[in-house]
Amino acid sequence: MTESMTLAGIASVVGGSVRGDEHAVIQGVATIGVAGQNELTWASAPQHRAMLAASGAGAVLVNDGFGETPMHAVVCEDVDAALVDVLSAFSTSTPGPAVGVHESAMISDSAKIGQNVAIGRRVIIDDHVVIGDNTVLHDGVFVGEGSRIGSDCRLWTYVVIREGCTLGDRVTIHSHTVVGADGFGYVTRAGVHRKIPHLGGVIIGNDVEIGASTCIDRSKTDHTIIGDGTKIDNQVQVAHNVQIGKGCIVCAQVGIAGSTKLGDYVVVGGQAGLKDNIEIGSGVMLAACACVPSSIKPGTKAAGSPAVEYRQFLRENASIRRLPDLVSRVNELSKRLKKLESAADD
Amino acid sequence: MTESMTLAGIASVVGGSVRGDEHAVIQGVATIGVAGQNELTWASAPQHRAMLAASGAGAVLVNDGFGETPMHAVVCEDVDAALVDVLSAFSTSTPGPAVGVHESAMISDSAKIGQNVAIGRRVIIDDHVVIGDNTVLHDGVFVGEGSRIGSDCRLWTYVVIREGCTLGDRVTIHSHTVVGADGFGYVTRAGVHRKIPHLGGVIIGNDVEIGASTCIDRSKTDHTIIGDGTKIDNQVQVAHNVQIGKGCIVCAQVGIAGSTKLGDYVVVGGQAGLKDNIEIGSGVMLAACACVPSSIKPGTKAAGSPAVEYRQFLRENASIRRLPDLVSRVNELSKRLKKLESAADD
Amino acid sequence: MTESMTLAGIASVVGGSVRGDEHAVIQGVATIGVAGQNELTWASAPQHRAMLAASGAGAVLVNDGFGETPMHAVVCEDVDAALVDVLSAFSTSTPGPAVGVHESAMISDSAKIGQNVAIGRRVIIDDHVVIGDNTVLHDGVFVGEGSRIGSDCRLWTYVVIREGCTLGDRVTIHSHTVVGADGFGYVTRAGVHRKIPHLGGVIIGNDVEIGASTCIDRSKTDHTIIGDGTKIDNQVQVAHNVQIGKGCIVCAQVGIAGSTKLGDYVVVGGQAGLKDNIEIGSGVMLAACACVPSSIKPGTKAAGSPAVEYRQFLRENASIRRLPDLVSRVNELSKRLKKLESAADD
Repeated sequence: MTESMTLAGIASVVGGSVRGDEHAVIQGVATIGVAGQNELTWASAPQHRAMLAASGAGAVLVNDGFGETPMHAVVCEDVDAALVDVLSAFSTSTPGPAVGVHESAMISDSAKIGQNVAIGRRVIIDDHVVIGDNTVLHDGVFVGEGSRIGSDCRLWTYVVIREGCTLGDRVTIHSHTVVGADGFGYVTRAGVHRKIPHLGGVIIGNDVEIGASTCIDRSKTDHTIIGDGTKIDNQVQVAHNVQIGKGCIVCAQVGIAGSTKLGDYVVVGGQAGLKDNIEIGSGVMLAACACVPSSIKPGTKAAGSPAVEYRQFLRENASIRRLPDLVSRVNELSKRLKKLESAADD
Repeated sequence: MTESMTLAGIASVVGGSVRGDEHAVIQGVATIGVAGQNELTWASAPQHRAMLAASGAGAVLVNDGFGETPMHAVVCEDVDAALVDVLSAFSTSTPGPAVGVHESAMISDSAKIGQNVAIGRRVIIDDHVVIGDNTVLHDGVFVGEGSRIGSDCRLWTYVVIREGCTLGDRVTIHSHTVVGADGFGYVTRAGVHRKIPHLGGVIIGNDVEIGASTCIDRSKTDHTIIGDGTKIDNQVQVAHNVQIGKGCIVCAQVGIAGSTKLGDYVVVGGQAGLKDNIEIGSGVMLAACACVPSSIKPGTKAAGSPAVEYRQFLRENASIRRLPDLVSRVNELSKRLKKLESAADD
Repeated sequence: MTESMTLAGIASVVGGSVRGDEHAVIQGVATIGVAGQNELTWASAPQHRAMLAASGAGAVLVNDGFGETPMHAVVCEDVDAALVDVLSAFSTSTPGPAVGVHESAMISDSAKIGQNVAIGRRVIIDDHVVIGDNTVLHDGVFVGEGSRIGSDCRLWTYVVIREGCTLGDRVTIHSHTVVGADGFGYVTRAGVHRKIPHLGGVIIGNDVEIGASTCIDRSKTDHTIIGDGTKIDNQVQVAHNVQIGKGCIVCAQVGIAGSTKLGDYVVVGGQAGLKDNIEIGSGVMLAACACVPSSIKPGTKAAGSPAVEYRQFLRENASIRRLPDLVSRVNELSKRLKKLESAADD
């Protein structure tokens, strides 16, 4: 944790340079309207220029070409990436359990726990679980029979990992998320819904982050799969046998129904819903609230309910905005046509 | 707790009067179709009149102008408000931990606990936490480092409050809600999503109620803010740096993306989705399922996906209902026009 | 648990016959593309025929009329139902607490616990709770004052059942689901939202399954009701006083607002939203993402936002796809009509 830095120190962290007083001391980071004399803010968009004039910030982080600023500046090549560097430098150490096993945790004798693992209060680890080095399990985490958690993972308070699931390295999962609950599948005969046993598990790759209160269901057979580097937000539903590729971004409250496959680097906007058994190609971007009833080719941008190609969506929407007028126009054309027809009949 | 009341007693609670037997004893409240001889029901809408005729209720709560009723009545000025008074009178004491600290709770020595606080089984309170007077923490609640909970709050079973968050007085939060999980933010360079550290917290005002399984994320810098008197339902997603004003009503499954601001007394219907970085003015009403891509002026009623002004939404929808007909009509006009054109050519 | 079966054994389980080597040993079930030499797969759709040719599966489960297969086959009458039989036979015993009460559980002296009940680590059972025979409560489950759980139920890790709720027999509820949180109801007077006390409970019938992170709110008066045999997926919101009939299927992320009633065998697609105080007749099928603003007659299939009858939805959607063209056509008709009018004027 860093409690304060000089502008020179910040410039060094971001690989940039100071314009103004190198020795000025900064104690934190805040947005333009909120930052005070001992805080750094950042500016990237043109509209930030006017806001800077009114800002009380002691210094501002800007890109090379941003131009003059009313306060000291740290000039860098990529303000968004540099901000991550600065926030990381100012980041207090993440709170959580100390390395070791808290006395209230219950850990099966058959579990294998790696080096430097931190296991919090009332954590439960079942038989044959494997936990990799440096992993942190916050209070109340549950890891079911035979599940494997990689190295450098962090599972927040009350995360539930059911039996037979596998997490890679550097996986972070936030509170109250459930990995490996039974998929929702029944065979209905004579009005009775018979539960389909779900014997498969969940495989989560490396460098995956999953938000709070998200559900990743276990598969019927095979595995539900989340690829390396994919990031999933809060309250997302990933159904049984779904396969998500690498580097995807899945925003909050998205629902992905059973056996649907996403390629790599797919971006799914908030609240989008994806039907079961479809394929979303690599690089697809789905707008927020999209309802996707069928497969989508790689690289496509889609929106709407049902989702269509994005420019088509824009055209249709513009047309719908004018639809009441169109009805009036057709009514008027109809009258005029009738008049002409009457005249022609005469 | 009141196990039974006379109609005179009920009339006194609601500031009304009895029409019928003041001494009749009522043991509970139920809806018109369900209420029995020893229960009170309530009627406000015109369609309730016919239902009352068939009701087995011993008495009914009605407004002054409601007219004759087939059973005893308690007549008042505001039946909906009076019903709250009656339900409060019949309300059994809320179950929960007794005043004091349960022996299974784990509380940091550096935490400051107010007077008359009730701390349930297996509650965890981390370093430097402050808990106000009369607050109730149900079983398994977690309060992270440095967070401050006001007076007269109630946090239900398994609520998670992460580090550095602040709750005002009289705040109620229901089970499995997570306050202060990391916001969902990455900077993507060369296909790698780098996590943005989230150093800010969450500030929740006074008299706020938050439902079950809701997520209020912490901010990148500054704070995510929920204003005084705002009520939030179950499974709502409030992203990082969102600011919600006073007295708002946010229904279930709503998603509000990062840095969006809501004014005061905004009503957001269930499942509505709000884009990031927009402003929803005070008094705005958003219909259920609205998908809101851009800022909305104060006092506007909006609906649809994408959301438009409400009367425009109604007009567009009416037009869409007739759209298949419109297509037919245009086809027909086209034919008739062609015929006229042919005739003119001859 | 069965670790391996011969094809003859599998045929016996499904009431079918073997085509090929009866003595071939199968150790598990997998999908066509994944199954290996010692695994069984299944095929039902015509497109599976080509996939079978490329499959490494040792055997395949098919219906009578499916025809030749490139590997051994188990032939049956109903492949989907037979697959459930086979998966059940291969199903490892569900992990969970042993019969008895774990020493870390906290159980009120006034609770009545049936025969053969398995109560896991840190389960909390409050006063006057009743738990039926053979029921399994996984670790950390909370059951509030006076609630009744039937026989042969299974409540997964961290399920919360608030006070005064009733579950029938053979009810399964997945992790982090909350039954009986307060309904979301306020009476607003002079800008102040007064909480309506919720004195009712929740009644869940027999043979109900409820997914993870779902919320079933308690009622204001009377009860929120889930009928026998109904299956509810993850992250579903069921508001106060909702009544759901028998045998319904409610997919993930559905929201049902207060006092709405569903008949029997209603199917609600994922993310659908249902307004408060409406009635959805028996046998209704609502498409995924439907937004339902008003009551729907029994047997209707509906879709869209707002939802309309399904064929109407299809027609409207087809029209919307062509709407930009329609605008162009009307523009063109308008020009041609003007020309005719000018000619007529001459």
